[in-house]
Amino acid sequence: MMSNNSRIIIDFEPISRRLHYYKNETIYQLLVDSGIRVRSLCGGLGTCGKCKLLVQQGNKHFNPPTDSEKKRLTKEEISENYRLACQCYIAEDQFDLIKKHPQPQIRVFLPQEFVLEDFKILTSGINKGINLNPNVKKVFIEVDKPNLKTPIPDLERIISALISTTEINKDQFEPSFEYETLKKIPLALRKDNHHITLTLYEDNKIIDCEAGNKVANNFGIAFDIGTTTLVGYLLNLSNGKIYSIASALNPQTAFGEDVVSRITYIKNNKKRLLKLNNVVLDALNVIINETCAEAKISPSQIYEATFVGNSVMHHIFLNIDPTYIGLSPYVPAFKKDLNVQAKDINIKINRGGYAYVLPLIAGYVGADTMGVILSSEIDNESDLTLAIDVGTNGEIIIGNTDVLATGSCAAGSALEGAHINDGMRAAAGAIDTLKIDPTDLSVRYTTINSKKPIGICGSGIIDAVAEMLKSKIITRSGGFNKKFIDHESIIKNNKNIEFILVKKDQTSIKRDITISQNDIRELQMAKAAFYSGARIILNHLNQANEYELKIKQIYLAGAFGNYINKSNAKFIGMIPDIPDEFIYQIGNAAGIGAQNCLLNIALRDKARELSEKIEYIEIAIAQEFQKEYAQAMYFPHLNLEHFPSLTEYNDILKR
Amino acid sequence: MMSNNSRIIIDFEPISRRLHYYKNETIYQLLVDSGIRVRSLCGGLGTCGKCKLLVQQGNKHFNPPTDSEKKRLTKEEISENYRLACQCYIAEDQFDLIKKHPQPQIRVFLPQEFVLEDFKILTSGINKGINLNPNVKKVFIEVDKPNLKTPIPDLERIISALISTTEINKDQFEPSFEYETLKKIPLALRKDNHHITLTLYEDNKIIDCEAGNKVANNFGIAFDIGTTTLVGYLLNLSNGKIYSIASALNPQTAFGEDVVSRITYIKNNKKRLLKLNNVVLDALNVIINETCAEAKISPSQIYEATFVGNSVMHHIFLNIDPTYIGLSPYVPAFKKDLNVQAKDINIKINRGGYAYVLPLIAGYVGADTMGVILSSEIDNESDLTLAIDVGTNGEIIIGNTDVLATGSCAAGSALEGAHINDGMRAAAGAIDTLKIDPTDLSVRYTTINSKKPIGICGSGIIDAVAEMLKSKIITRSGGFNKKFIDHESIIKNNKNIEFILVKKDQTSIKRDITISQNDIRELQMAKAAFYSGARIILNHLNQANEYELKIKQIYLAGAFGNYINKSNAKFIGMIPDIPDEFIYQIGNAAGIGAQNCLLNIALRDKARELSEKIEYIEIAIAQEFQKEYAQAMYFPHLNLEHFPSLTEYNDILKR
Repeated sequence: MMSNNSRIIIDFEPISRRLHYYKNETIYQLLVDSGIRVRSLCGGLGTCGKCKLLVQQGNKHFNPPTDSEKKRLTKEEISENYRLACQCYIAEDQFDLIKKHPQPQIRVFLPQEFVLEDFKILTSGINKGINLNPNVKKVFIEVDKPNLKTPIPDLERIISALISTTEINKDQFEPSFEYETLKKIPLALRKDNHHITLTLYEDNKIIDCEAGNKVANNFGIAFDIGTTTLVGYLLNLSNGKIYSIASALNPQTAFGEDVVSRITYIKNNKKRLLKLNNVVLDALNVIINETCAEAKISPSQIYEATFVGNSVMHHIFLNIDPTYIGLSPYVPAFKKDLNVQAKDINIKINRGGYAYVLPLIAGYVGADTMGVILSSEIDNESDLTLAIDVGTNGEIIIGNTDVLATGSCAAGSALEGAHINDGMRAAAGAIDTLKIDPTDLSVRYTTINSKKPIGICGSGIIDAVAEMLKSKIITRSGGFNKKFIDHESIIKNNKNIEFILVKKDQTSIKRDITISQNDIRELQMAKAAFYSGARIILNHLNQANEYELKIKQIYLAGAFGNYINKSNAKFIGMIPDIPDEFIYQIGNAAGIGAQNCLLNIALRDKARELSEKIEYIEIAIAQEFQKEYAQAMYFPHLNLEHFPSLTEYNDILKR
Repeated sequence: MMSNNSRIIIDFEPISRRLHYYKNETIYQLLVDSGIRVRSLCGGLGTCGKCKLLVQQGNKHFNPPTDSEKKRLTKEEISENYRLACQCYIAEDQFDLIKKHPQPQIRVFLPQEFVLEDFKILTSGINKGINLNPNVKKVFIEVDKPNLKTPIPDLERIISALISTTEINKDQFEPSFEYETLKKIPLALRKDNHHITLTLYEDNKIIDCEAGNKVANNFGIAFDIGTTTLVGYLLNLSNGKIYSIASALNPQTAFGEDVVSRITYIKNNKKRLLKLNNVVLDALNVIINETCAEAKISPSQIYEATFVGNSVMHHIFLNIDPTYIGLSPYVPAFKKDLNVQAKDINIKINRGGYAYVLPLIAGYVGADTMGVILSSEIDNESDLTLAIDVGTNGEIIIGNTDVLATGSCAAGSALEGAHINDGMRAAAGAIDTLKIDPTDLSVRYTTINSKKPIGICGSGIIDAVAEMLKSKIITRSGGFNKKFIDHESIIKNNKNIEFILVKKDQTSIKRDITISQNDIRELQMAKAAFYSGARIILNHLNQANEYELKIKQIYLAGAFGNYINKSNAKFIGMIPDIPDEFIYQIGNAAGIGAQNCLLNIALRDKARELSEKIEYIEIAIAQEFQKEYAQAMYFPHLNLEHFPSLTEYNDILKR
């Protein structure tokens, strides 16, 4: 290890952390290695410009700004000692100098947008109702005592008692005892006069043995492992009720905000894979403890955990290299569902407990999409239904009782604030809804937790762009309207044009919050990806169909889908032109899918069947993709016939 | 934890260990807690007198001799500062005094008999031949590469390749991949151009995936977990050959020499159970590394380990409380055979590897006896065969193609040196064979490793008693013959009479090595237990049989059985009167049973069937036990008709 005097101390504010800096590491590495969750889209490659920080004291000790910083920071910022965390470090000659003159003050300020905390996480959703038939059941039995004449071993006496107690077909019943259970038998049996409770997994695997009657203490936990957020639902398996819910940010975010940057970070590196695996497991185990504390139970009373997540989250969570999901032809290691002992994957529930991981559909359509299908029961709808799950990744499902197809579009991240100048995720201080007065272009907005604005999240961006369209600040092609170019709310610089949403004196970041020309392009690309993706899947289904299939209803799943203004989403052309009453916001449908698999094992068979049956469409390689995508770049679409009910556009077209 | 100045330093010789002594612990506890393997039959209760040591310096700091020491040490020994480790400790007032005057010299000498090392362990045996059909097989396959049109996941492509490669019935073949294997797939597949080797467990469970052709690297290890010794046999599962063998003393010996004292040590105490579990697992893992180093392979190339051991060793090895094996009605937690992932029980072979533990027969007839039956194939003999496995515990089996019954006798320990004044196990310096010249009672002997004698081991004790009988030093009832009472080789003191085998100037313990009246009684009890045990089992079988069954051949299994003089064993009446040519010394038959289960899975079915079928006789509760036992106390038996061929007794009877 490093000797004690080979390090320098740096203070970080406002988080009040004093960290030991070692030679040759960047500040970004230092923060990440210290477990501080920071923003980065590129995983520290210097290309996203999100890891901005302010050197408040000791700037002279740092390396001079790099080319990457000169490109991504304004001159003003550079003069104020703003740096990119992934680009700055203590200069080598300075390092040695500082060592000789112990502990000069070096203080770094981390802007609020940079440190990840205080997020709004969607945990609720609509459950279509489910029969209770869990994989884990408990049974209380009285066991015969042994005697010298027939000194039958403990296990054999327990099996006899179990067979005579339960209603299982005796001929077919061959109970097997897990090793973890065997260890408990001698003491459990004798603690309460040979009265014990056995826990049965899949009806015949005995995974726990407790003294006395513990039938009521039978819990399961369902997890939704999102790219950005983690949610755990603690359920009682004997009555199907949710006892508590806890959520957290996915700490992997510090290593890259989206799945692609996390794959880039890992890229065949076992150690880095293990690092991302460890951080998410630690967070999941914290969630287990939190839900248990709230429900006043012990984690040892949880016998099964179910998991949904996109393919990359799925792989990393299981400590399986996701590298090849990121390389053409984008295949996962496997897509089958998985039963595995919870302890094998370091999930800390009962030592004999199991984990069930839902099946994937394809490389970029994961178990989370399977969860959406299971909970929304799109395959039982007579009307053709489009479901989109807008998380950090976007998944599209189209189906009904006859057909079912999915595809994915790497479009969600713009809707979570990535690549958007003032974009951020749905955390405290994010502008989430807004309206523009067309008469004076004044903006009324709301923020999450009513905090002073820091930036704008997905639903706010959609509102902003839709309102800018309605106010004619921008045109259907996404360009700024020349008519307003001299308006006081419009600024023009460096070949970019920006519309000011909030003036800097009203923000807590001490600069204007704006929507720029580039931001609008990002949104156009995102919404075009969703719309054209849905079109391509629909076209594919129609090719094989006699009559033309038409989308009759829309399910919006995921946090983003739950908060957006349906009309505005339609107005910008992100989703097809369907009456509002047929657009349903179904909440965290993926998480409900995980819950339902916990409560009723029949859904696992269904998931297995669906995983084989669902058609997967590789949208980006479809012949018509370029054309569909280009047309969908317009607001709402190049061809207004796609959106006949949006009569407001008649007015816009007149400009 | 203790503060630094609340301890005293004690030096131990000849082992050159400096240990920290804390207040209120006995020297025995200190040694055991420090992992020094010491003799004790009683587990530190002060009743066996085996833990004798010499305080060389600092005697005044110790407590005065206890009643137990006054009873078990001679006056001379006490005056020389011999103590029993389990009885002596630093006196409380002395402790505080020593703390004030730092580090006075306290030195303790541990006699060679007291520290356990340098043992002779039997690893060989007679194998009746076995067909090769292991549970673990390897198959080399070429897997199709994925493409964008059919982006089939890795696992699904592997399964297709596997099905088309193997000769398994395709309809019934549903391979399941262990989690540990899934983790390896993406990289293994791409390391050698989609050429991989899969390891199949039970034909359909895939437990490893390696790049390239690794079919030849398929190993298994068979373990015999004895009360005293551990042996591991490394076998190549593709050709059935033994590649290397390693052995070690069971380090649990430090916590008690026999199973009863280890149960006493544990007695419902989870921590102590875990301690004994840990020490034996550490030793087994060292054996794994040793066998692998000798065979020049990695432990990751071992895919299965099989285990035999008596019921108590079996339970402790599996971290299962053996307390109730020690309490009437002596039931084990279970007796079924067990398949468990090796990593779950901390056996460090391939991460996906498995352990197979042979079934027990009853509380005191364990998997080791099952191993003896499997390898000796006693159940396939047309002649009625008696097999006895003399280890630290004694097991008796009687059977042929028609009948099969077992029982156990707690009689082995005397034959391993316990309760015998100068008794010791078969380690270097133990007298293992001897002859007495009847003319002058002079003794010729051999020792293990030809070292200066320290004591006498089981085979030597049998020889000594048989020779003393032949020389008429003792009578058939076990008493010393008055005729020799004044012979220079006979000493009489404290109501005990001793025959000197080796004078003190020729021993390395600086005192005479003798056989005392008490020693002869101990041997009488042991041999009577074996003989009467066999009689009781035979009687039981005859009760249910039309014609009278008679023992036609004898198998002597285990280390002790392998080294004893067959004629002398018969002469003292330990085994029935059968011609020498029908008495077979079959070596470590239990270990061979474990090997055979590794090489041919059919034997596991057989073991399962046998475990249900074998009759277990609780010898000590049989009606006729007292009478049979009392008669068998005579040499060779009260009723000489049992030993018609021992004509030498005619001569002895004439005295």
